[in-house]
Amino acid sequence: MPDKRAAGAPGDGAGAAGQPLREGAPRVMVAGATGFAGALAAHLLWRHAGFELVAVTGRSDVGRLLEELYPRYRVPLALQELDVPRLGGIDAAIVAYPHAAAAPTVAALRERGIRVIDLSADFRLSSLATYEHWYGEHPRPQLLQDAVYGLTELHREQIAGAGIVANPGCYPTAAVLGLAPLARAGLLADVVVDAKQGISGAGRVFDDTTHLSYAGENIVPYKVAEHRHTPEIEEQLALLGAELPVLFQAHLVPLDQGELASCYVTPTRELAAAELAELYREAYRDEPFVEVADEPPGTREVCATNFCRIFAAADAHTGKVVVLSAIDNLWKGTSSQAVQNLNVMYSLPEQEGLL
Amino acid sequence: MPDKRAAGAPGDGAGAAGQPLREGAPRVMVAGATGFAGALAAHLLWRHAGFELVAVTGRSDVGRLLEELYPRYRVPLALQELDVPRLGGIDAAIVAYPHAAAAPTVAALRERGIRVIDLSADFRLSSLATYEHWYGEHPRPQLLQDAVYGLTELHREQIAGAGIVANPGCYPTAAVLGLAPLARAGLLADVVVDAKQGISGAGRVFDDTTHLSYAGENIVPYKVAEHRHTPEIEEQLALLGAELPVLFQAHLVPLDQGELASCYVTPTRELAAAELAELYREAYRDEPFVEVADEPPGTREVCATNFCRIFAAADAHTGKVVVLSAIDNLWKGTSSQAVQNLNVMYSLPEQEGLL
Amino acid sequence: MPDKRAAGAPGDGAGAAGQPLREGAPRVMVAGATGFAGALAAHLLWRHAGFELVAVTGRSDVGRLLEELYPRYRVPLALQELDVPRLGGIDAAIVAYPHAAAAPTVAALRERGIRVIDLSADFRLSSLATYEHWYGEHPRPQLLQDAVYGLTELHREQIAGAGIVANPGCYPTAAVLGLAPLARAGLLADVVVDAKQGISGAGRVFDDTTHLSYAGENIVPYKVAEHRHTPEIEEQLALLGAELPVLFQAHLVPLDQGELASCYVTPTRELAAAELAELYREAYRDEPFVEVADEPPGTREVCATNFCRIFAAADAHTGKVVVLSAIDNLWKGTSSQAVQNLNVMYSLPEQEGLL
Amino acid sequence: MPDKRAAGAPGDGAGAAGQPLREGAPRVMVAGATGFAGALAAHLLWRHAGFELVAVTGRSDVGRLLEELYPRYRVPLALQELDVPRLGGIDAAIVAYPHAAAAPTVAALRERGIRVIDLSADFRLSSLATYEHWYGEHPRPQLLQDAVYGLTELHREQIAGAGIVANPGCYPTAAVLGLAPLARAGLLADVVVDAKQGISGAGRVFDDTTHLSYAGENIVPYKVAEHRHTPEIEEQLALLGAELPVLFQAHLVPLDQGELASCYVTPTRELAAAELAELYREAYRDEPFVEVADEPPGTREVCATNFCRIFAAADAHTGKVVVLSAIDNLWKGTSSQAVQNLNVMYSLPEQEGLL
Repeated sequence: MPDKRAAGAPGDGAGAAGQPLREGAPRVMVAGATGFAGALAAHLLWRHAGFELVAVTGRSDVGRLLEELYPRYRVPLALQELDVPRLGGIDAAIVAYPHAAAAPTVAALRERGIRVIDLSADFRLSSLATYEHWYGEHPRPQLLQDAVYGLTELHREQIAGAGIVANPGCYPTAAVLGLAPLARAGLLADVVVDAKQGISGAGRVFDDTTHLSYAGENIVPYKVAEHRHTPEIEEQLALLGAELPVLFQAHLVPLDQGELASCYVTPTRELAAAELAELYREAYRDEPFVEVADEPPGTREVCATNFCRIFAAADAHTGKVVVLSAIDNLWKGTSSQAVQNLNVMYSLPEQEGLL
Repeated sequence: MPDKRAAGAPGDGAGAAGQPLREGAPRVMVAGATGFAGALAAHLLWRHAGFELVAVTGRSDVGRLLEELYPRYRVPLALQELDVPRLGGIDAAIVAYPHAAAAPTVAALRERGIRVIDLSADFRLSSLATYEHWYGEHPRPQLLQDAVYGLTELHREQIAGAGIVANPGCYPTAAVLGLAPLARAGLLADVVVDAKQGISGAGRVFDDTTHLSYAGENIVPYKVAEHRHTPEIEEQLALLGAELPVLFQAHLVPLDQGELASCYVTPTRELAAAELAELYREAYRDEPFVEVADEPPGTREVCATNFCRIFAAADAHTGKVVVLSAIDNLWKGTSSQAVQNLNVMYSLPEQEGLL
Repeated sequence: MPDKRAAGAPGDGAGAAGQPLREGAPRVMVAGATGFAGALAAHLLWRHAGFELVAVTGRSDVGRLLEELYPRYRVPLALQELDVPRLGGIDAAIVAYPHAAAAPTVAALRERGIRVIDLSADFRLSSLATYEHWYGEHPRPQLLQDAVYGLTELHREQIAGAGIVANPGCYPTAAVLGLAPLARAGLLADVVVDAKQGISGAGRVFDDTTHLSYAGENIVPYKVAEHRHTPEIEEQLALLGAELPVLFQAHLVPLDQGELASCYVTPTRELAAAELAELYREAYRDEPFVEVADEPPGTREVCATNFCRIFAAADAHTGKVVVLSAIDNLWKGTSSQAVQNLNVMYSLPEQEGLL
Repeated sequence: MPDKRAAGAPGDGAGAAGQPLREGAPRVMVAGATGFAGALAAHLLWRHAGFELVAVTGRSDVGRLLEELYPRYRVPLALQELDVPRLGGIDAAIVAYPHAAAAPTVAALRERGIRVIDLSADFRLSSLATYEHWYGEHPRPQLLQDAVYGLTELHREQIAGAGIVANPGCYPTAAVLGLAPLARAGLLADVVVDAKQGISGAGRVFDDTTHLSYAGENIVPYKVAEHRHTPEIEEQLALLGAELPVLFQAHLVPLDQGELASCYVTPTRELAAAELAELYREAYRDEPFVEVADEPPGTREVCATNFCRIFAAADAHTGKVVVLSAIDNLWKGTSSQAVQNLNVMYSLPEQEGLL
């Protein structure tokens, strides 16, 4: 590993980008920084002039520099064990733990007044019954009511004041942003979402499914008619006025980062191309991170960015509507959306550190 | 290029696999062997003990050995210009030309009594009106009635005696095999087909879309609500009794060979899992190249084979049925299905040369 | 998994290719069939008309069909636990165990008169001292003298009568075939071998190095100046008359199967291009699986084959010679070379089952 | 294409990153922005607060926005035809033209007082004879003496005042940075450089070599003993005191961006590991973009960065030294090094816009 850093040591007041940290910047930590999502969040915060990344924790590799595990992220902080009672001077935390393991840590952090962005599914569903149907017993159900769903474009105002932000799943991010204009307009009669994602979506999991000799040169559908992101999509569409069951199907394809949700909609009434185009343009006119495209988007167009790029078309032949929504599953689908939410929570410009 | 051949020179009575060619084996040619489909067809026939590959033609690279263009296929035949009037002693031809360019050549070959398997779309649609809507004027409409659609599993008997076999498109192959049991049982009320394919599906076309720096690390939807394989799927389903418009959407994903058709079906009535399973098992019990799987198939499971692997599941949540159908787009989707059809046309065992 | 087999059940006298098994075919087993090398060996033997594959064993997954683990190999045999004392009616075994674990099993099989092809490094080095320097204590040193190094092209005659064939490492296979003509002619003064290999070369190992999100979009050098294949290359070159230390460096690149050894030779005297070309052509004129190429070979040209393709060039500028040697690391580099050796051991045509 | 921009329109004083452009920032253009190198240079300059990107030109696609060709670079400037006589108010230009085509444009720009960074090979070699041996007649030989070789770490002082900076080839960048400490210390007796690169290194060229169906799953050596980067490496090593012929061999491997130069050195005297480590640490102690690593670097560690990561090891077995030097061929190997040079030319912090 390199014997020199691209930037100063932690605490010297400089992000990796050499920009001086702003005075009074909130002090943040990332809990669970050894996984893909936590590591990227740490990378983004390390370069962010508006937040001071003061700690990264992990349940393995304690004492190693994060940049030894993720050289390209260049975060020269040593991994610590998380010891909530001894935490001091932390304003906010991003928690990147597995489902069910996250809730108790979120609760402990909240007790110390720390604002939390939770990347797990533990606080994404407002209905306890739905959670327990898909995930089993909830470790801290009493906190559900305090959590705000962190799809920034839909819940910006509540996020601003939230104590717990439940960062969305990557599939719901792409699907709900793609479907929201139709849902809000009462135009969704039936929805199928066929999603494709790169292997980073499987996380830092080591088995056949992520081995290049299996995952390369392969297209792999999984969890047929039983993916846990289904209720999350349905809840968000319902909040927009569209209560309907959604058929969601996921696939892994051989790339690293990238996700496309292809949404097949039966509209409640006939939709002309012009009306559809106007509906989407209008819906996202002021959104800094949603681009309404004139052509079907490839995921590479949004790779390593916080953008979501959406294309909608009416199919005169079947009367259906096709919506294609592309994101980077690790960025807008996970970690950069967490930073977008942090920006909102601390009244920073929403794009800061993300362009 | 190598100065030695894995097998004997053409005409020495030995396929590349060293198996002696059977006496009286039909003599076949491949017209258009410089593209992916033609080259693979030549490769398969060169190793086939039941056919003698006597000529490969191309509009470029005349005089070069096919194995200089495709070393891994190891076909040591020199490319010739196609000169139909001078052709002699040819029993059958595989024509791998672009749409519209194929028909006149097919016609000329038929006039000399040569049986043809055409890989283009020129003879796939029985309706001239439908052809002209999607492709423009047909160069040889009078031949349409002589052609048999070459999805072997559906039209085996007519293929056996056909003069022209219209080899199916790769997407219709996967989609129709996936949907046929439901179509035949009158169970299709609505169908969306979301297909993903490797870059070989774009052919030996050189532009941004096939450049690894674009196609790699990308998921690319294309031809939204306007793919030419749509009417082909609809015609075949209609023949099975299911007349309905199909929404078909194609995507390119970063691998070479592999194709998955994810079919989302609204059935005409509720379907239990057991009934669905039995329907598929029964439909393909005797098919040598269709495998009904117990788990969602990855395309790698059928890579470089003539197999189609299908998984069907009922989704109790939405009442829909999900059918996943995996093939190798260049093999069962194109060239090995052509050889399967040749086997049928000449009463050879259907699996010969394909296992 | 499919409920139907491409071929008959084991023991019905038919290989997967539908070819009738020859009467009196030797009965073979693969021990360690759950790894990449053993599984491919089982696949090749299952399709081979000259051998009857009667058993596959594994230390995990006992009772599962091999084709559940490797669907594309289509070997419908159930994995068994290896129980050497109870083995009956086995003529030969391919042992695909890790280094050091292999030797005791090889010894036990030999005691029952079974001929063995060992894919590990345990019997590749004739010098016990060299083995122990690189691998630690040898579990069965007394067997070293019975083993023949299984680089078919160099040791065909001893392989024919061997009880133990030590199948070569993939890197030595490519490097030694590339360098043998120069070594034999006394022309090697200095050698650097820079080898690149696909991720299958790392085996069915699950960690960061094989995860697509790490291995994809990466070029990774490893084991600098300490790769265990170095002494194997040196011993084989010494047998050909070239005693010299070799600098060997390995790299992983993002593909599945393929290996290129780029050899940089300082010759003992000036070599003209024509002399070099003649030397290589002459050396491999009668070899069925070594192709001397006129252009630098890409590994795809030999993918999924038992071929080694070699290109040699004299560099007038530096006086050095560049030799490029391409194989498929899993095929000629491992499993298909094992079958080639089996063919030799049982006096079958060397190409049988490999074209 | 998106109907909205991430940042303001050109000329509104804001880079894409939303940072206010500094007052008095030099005005720069990119000539040849439709290729990979020019497009990335434009992307980096558009986000740079210290330069105002005022024009991008191309010989094709005039009038289209650069971000239509390269959506992920998000540069909303329209491509113009280059019309040097009408150029006004341009301080500096990056010229991304093919070899030989660049020199006349560079000359024309110089006549108007514009400082130029030329990405072609036209001004990289100080010896006209060497240039003409490798490239043919030089279009503007009289300008050779005005050009400074733009390997920033070696020629920083001359670059600061240069009118023409000849930006290095990507291979020489990796190789010369890897070898410079040994060259300067008089330790190079013999050098072999084996380089591997992703497909972006072939440029926006459309043929078999860049088609994913060929380049994927392949390792392809090319230009054996005749690569044009050889004399460039030799000239730079000679300037450091090491006059010797270099054997350079290039390979394409299946990724997009990434390059590794594996250098095999016969030193002039024995070198101990500690001495070697100290030599490299010392050489690059103050370099912001060169990292001396403790482990062999994978190219992913420097992907999409201006860093070069180097590892050096002494091989006691052969007495040779192995140096592994990793860069991103499009970044440090081309476009970000051009921006690094621009920073030097205009006395900006060398890291600005590159972290």
